[in-house]
Formats: sequence, structure tokens, C-alpha cells
Amino acid sequence: MTAFTSLPEFAALLAASPAADASALAAAAQRNGQLTKPPGALGRLEEVGIWIGGWQGRAQPQIDHPQVVIFAGNHGVTAQGVSAFPSEVTVQMVANFRHGGAAINQLARLHGAEVEVVALELDRPTADFTQGPAMTEAETVAALQAGWNAVSPKADILVVGEMGIGNTTVAAALAAKLFGGTGMDWVGRGTGVDDAGLTRKAKAVDAGLARHADVTGPLQVLAALGGREVAAMAGAMARARVERVPVVLDGFIACAAAAVLHCATPGALDHAVAGHLSAEGAHARLLEKLGKQPLLSLGLRLGEGSGAAVALGVIRAAVVCQSGMATFAEAGVSGG
Amino acid sequence: MTAFTSLPEFAALLAASPAADASALAAAAQRNGQLTKPPGALGRLEEVGIWIGGWQGRAQPQIDHPQVVIFAGNHGVTAQGVSAFPSEVTVQMVANFRHGGAAINQLARLHGAEVEVVALELDRPTADFTQGPAMTEAETVAALQAGWNAVSPKADILVVGEMGIGNTTVAAALAAKLFGGTGMDWVGRGTGVDDAGLTRKAKAVDAGLARHADVTGPLQVLAALGGREVAAMAGAMARARVERVPVVLDGFIACAAAAVLHCATPGALDHAVAGHLSAEGAHARLLEKLGKQPLLSLGLRLGEGSGAAVALGVIRAAVVCQSGMATFAEAGVSGG
Repeated sequence: MTAFTSLPEFAALLAASPAADASALAAAAQRNGQLTKPPGALGRLEEVGIWIGGWQGRAQPQIDHPQVVIFAGNHGVTAQGVSAFPSEVTVQMVANFRHGGAAINQLARLHGAEVEVVALELDRPTADFTQGPAMTEAETVAALQAGWNAVSPKADILVVGEMGIGNTTVAAALAAKLFGGTGMDWVGRGTGVDDAGLTRKAKAVDAGLARHADVTGPLQVLAALGGREVAAMAGAMARARVERVPVVLDGFIACAAAAVLHCATPGALDHAVAGHLSAEGAHARLLEKLGKQPLLSLGLRLGEGSGAAVALGVIRAAVVCQSGMATFAEAGVSGG
Repeated sequence: MTAFTSLPEFAALLAASPAADASALAAAAQRNGQLTKPPGALGRLEEVGIWIGGWQGRAQPQIDHPQVVIFAGNHGVTAQGVSAFPSEVTVQMVANFRHGGAAINQLARLHGAEVEVVALELDRPTADFTQGPAMTEAETVAALQAGWNAVSPKADILVVGEMGIGNTTVAAALAAKLFGGTGMDWVGRGTGVDDAGLTRKAKAVDAGLARHADVTGPLQVLAALGGREVAAMAGAMARARVERVPVVLDGFIACAAAAVLHCATPGALDHAVAGHLSAEGAHARLLEKLGKQPLLSLGLRLGEGSGAAVALGVIRAAVVCQSGMATFAEAGVSGG
């Protein structure tokens, strides 16, 4: 049984979630200061290693059970001609994930990560948000629950990915509604639309903003303009927050899901690090709204959790240094 | 027996080294275009995967035997008060490398990489380059040979790291001599000197430039202003070039060693990728001179090959995607 059965119950759980473990954070920072390197010489790795220690509740964090969860959904807004690929590709790629052929499978295997694929009613796309709400409240709750339930009790770090033809338009609509601006401020080329496709995306977002002008509240916005996989991502990230499992944010769509939580509860993303800056147009703007500095900037724009999974390599590097290095005293090295 | 016994013989070997395998490069690019992702959606990972394919001579590259070699040396120029740490730290850190306690040990283990530590006459520092040549030609050849011989015949990718109190000053002197500019243009805070220490570093570099104003030729510059570990790094990188083993460049000192090869032979670094942009002041300028874009920028400034080893995670990600992903045909995915 899931811990919530309505949007307000979900919001209340998120609002009540615990902070990082302050004493573990302090112990991790103290340990970091004794390791055999000049102070600060591992740069951002030091910050990440200490931060993971705080969320895992130990000065020597470990990544033994990284989990990758990919949520897939289809979108009524594809009727507006917003993607370069047909909607059938969503179900085809889900099969590819299950057969281990996609980028995320290779990246997850590299890190010894379990991959969970959750396909959300692919034969029943959400409604076209230019015409009405994408999802009912019950559909939104069901998708949040699917995400919540997908997080493994063993996970010590979580990557949340997605697949859904049309979902960069959905993410742009969410970002525009949550943070202001027009469609053109938030849309990008997604899987590779041309200029005309980009204009259609912006028009669809603007139509959605107009249609849902009176909607308020981040979770209501999620229902009106979101999608099942986006809601499920938010559900998984929220579960991780409640369980103090650190999360690696992927690209524009994952960050739009995260933005719903961020707008619902201050500090809802304290357990999340931005894995990368993607090539999708407005990702930098979205990360800025979330107050997150990406670990990587390699021009990825694939989704699937792929950028976050590449960043997992950097995070594992931070963790092995924080936890495995000798101290000055242990190594008999002069401390400078 | 090493393949060269003089600086001109070394230069000749480097100049004669082969290019990447053009047909493997083309096959890797063709394979990349068939993988289940929108074209270009893996950004820089695609470029790196294809590039490794070209150097390894196969469309599906593998990283089964990554090698990390760390060279350590001591420097007479420390007499000028250029480091925040005493020279004893070099030998202490070599012991730490050998006991597995340093950052590079943790990072290498993460990638299943062999670590080779080569300590180069630590009890016999190079001469102070403000007073005369740092090394004789024979000493320079011996250090290049130590690097050349340290590369494992099994290595399918190589990280070249260093340890040597004082060696950011050495690297700055090399960069200034090879590319122009004054000491202040090239020095940085190294392990953490204060403003007075920074001024002493710049003065030492300027004194070295004045002392060796008449030296010409990159390998002669290496002898005059370099150090044993820097020469050994150049030797290892050159061996990799000759054997077509891809190299991941680390920070400022590794790039100064690479710069000697770059200035000796156009294309000498075609087999090398810049692992990261370090926090050491002039590293960005040096990478620009080498025409290299770093994969990472995480504020590291530790040396030991640590930044390159973190970047190895990104490179392995590129390789597993290039070699392991299904094609559109294999996966039955519509190509858009």
C-alpha cells in the first residue's frame, strides 16, 4: 500500500521529510579535512562526498546499490506535431531498455546499477493539454504512486530517467507555468525538431498556459500540463527524499519533475545533485531556478537517465575518495 | 633496451609515430550513426567513443586494461620557496601511493586500473633552474626512458600522473618558455601558496627564463627547466603515441609535459584527450595552447593523475555506449 492516496497527502509527506543527518555531515567534513591532499584539492568531489555522507548518515559513504528507474509515458500533446519521432518509439524503446540495448543499460551496467523500467499505460496517452487537463487527479496520484513504489529499499543512490515521445514539450509547459515565461522561453529541439517543429512546440505550450491559466498549486499544475512518467519521476524523487536516498538529476524532463517538488516544498531537492547540463535549450535556465550546479556539461540530450548515469561515475569517484583515502596520520604524510 | 638513447632519437621516434586507424575511425562513426538514439544525442560521448575506436583500431572499442602511471621527482627550485609543502612530502606520498591510501589509488580501483608508481631519484633533486639547467641531457634521456618503459604492453588507455613538490613552478616555467609570457602569466597557487609564495614562484620562473634565454628546441627546454617526473610523463605519452594507446591528460603539470611533445611534433597529442580543467591558474590557457577541450571542470588541483582518472569514468561511459548499444535494426526501433 502506498503511503498516500491524494495529492494533499503526497504534499504532506514531502513537507514532513527529514533533512540530512547533521552529525554525519559534520563527521564527513571532519574526515575530509584529514585526508592526504591539500585542503580543497579535490574540488567539487569533496563537496559531493561530504553531501552524500550527510544523506547516507555516515562519514564514509558507500555506493553499493545504485538504482536506475526509467519511467515511460505517452502524451496527447503529440497531436500538435511537437516531436520528430512517432509515439510508437516510446514502446519500442521500452522493449530496448528491457533487452539491454539502450544507452542507459550500458551506463547502468558500468556502475553495477539495477535498472527498473516502469511503462505507464503507453496505450493510453494523457489528454492533449492544449484541449484540457493532461491527467485527472486520480491519474496523477496513480502515477506518483508508481514512482514512489519503484524505489528499491536497498537503493543507496537513485537515478530517475524517462522515455516519452513529446515530453520535452510537457516539461517546457510545466517549467513555464511554474516559473513564468512563454513557450519560446522554455522549448528546445528535443530529439531534433526543425524550426517549424520548435514553433509548434512553443505554440502548444502557450496554448496549454492559456487553457490552464487558472490552475494554481504545483501538483495541480503537474496534473494539468504533466504526464504520467513526469509524475512518476516526481513520486520517486519524493520517496527518495523521505528515505534520505541521494538522487542524481538527469536532464530537462527530470528537472521539470523535480521542479514540481521544489515549488511544492522548500528544500524538497536538498537530497538531489544535478548530474549534467544537457543540450536541451532551457535546461540551464531550469537548473538555475532549482539552484543547482551541474556536475557535467557534455552536450547530452538523450534522457533515459543517461546524463545522470554518466554523472554517477563522478559521484562514485567522490565517494571512494571520501571513504577510502588515508588520513595524514595514517599515511605518515606531513600536513603542510 | 629502450628504443632511443638521445634526445634526437626520441624526437625522431615521436615524429614517425602513426596516426589513428582511418578505417576503424570510419567504421566507428558509421556504427555510432546506427545506434538507438537521435543523432548526436549523446553529445561529446559520441565523439570520444569514435575517437577511441580510431586509436584502438576497432569500431567497438573496449577498456579492459586501463593503466595509471605516476611519476615522482624532486626539484632544486624548491630552494626558491615556491611550495607550501616541504620536499619530504614527495617521498611520503610515494609511500602512500604504494600503500593504496591516496586519491589516485581509490580512483584507479574504481576503474579496475593498474597503478604503477615510478619514483625518480627522489634523494637527488634536479638542479635549481634559476642557477643552471635543471637536468643534463643524459638525465633527461634517462627520465624519458623511465616513462617510455613504464607503459604496460597490455594498456588500452593510459593516465599519466605525477607527484613532485615544486612542480607547478616547473610546469609554469616550461609553459612560459614554450609559449611565451612571464612567470606571473603561468604560475598558480599549486598546493596552496599565499600571495607572497605566488610572487616567489613568478620570480623563480622569470629568473629561469632569463637564465635559459638562449635555449631552443622543446626537448632542450625540458632539460633546462623541467624535472624528472615531467620528462618521464612526456616519455610515457610518447610511447603511447607510438603504440596508438589513447591517453587521458591530467592537470597543469601533465599538460606541461604534453606541451613539450606538442611543440616537438605537430599531432603528437592526437591520441590524447584533456581529462579536466583544473583549478590551477593557467591550466585553461595551457589547454587552449594544446587545442584541447576538457571533459570535466570540477575544480580539482591535486595532480597524481586524479582528474584524468575521474575523466576515465566519462570515457568508459562513451566506450560502453559506442560498443554496447543496440542498433535501430537490432532493436526494432523506428529511426525517426
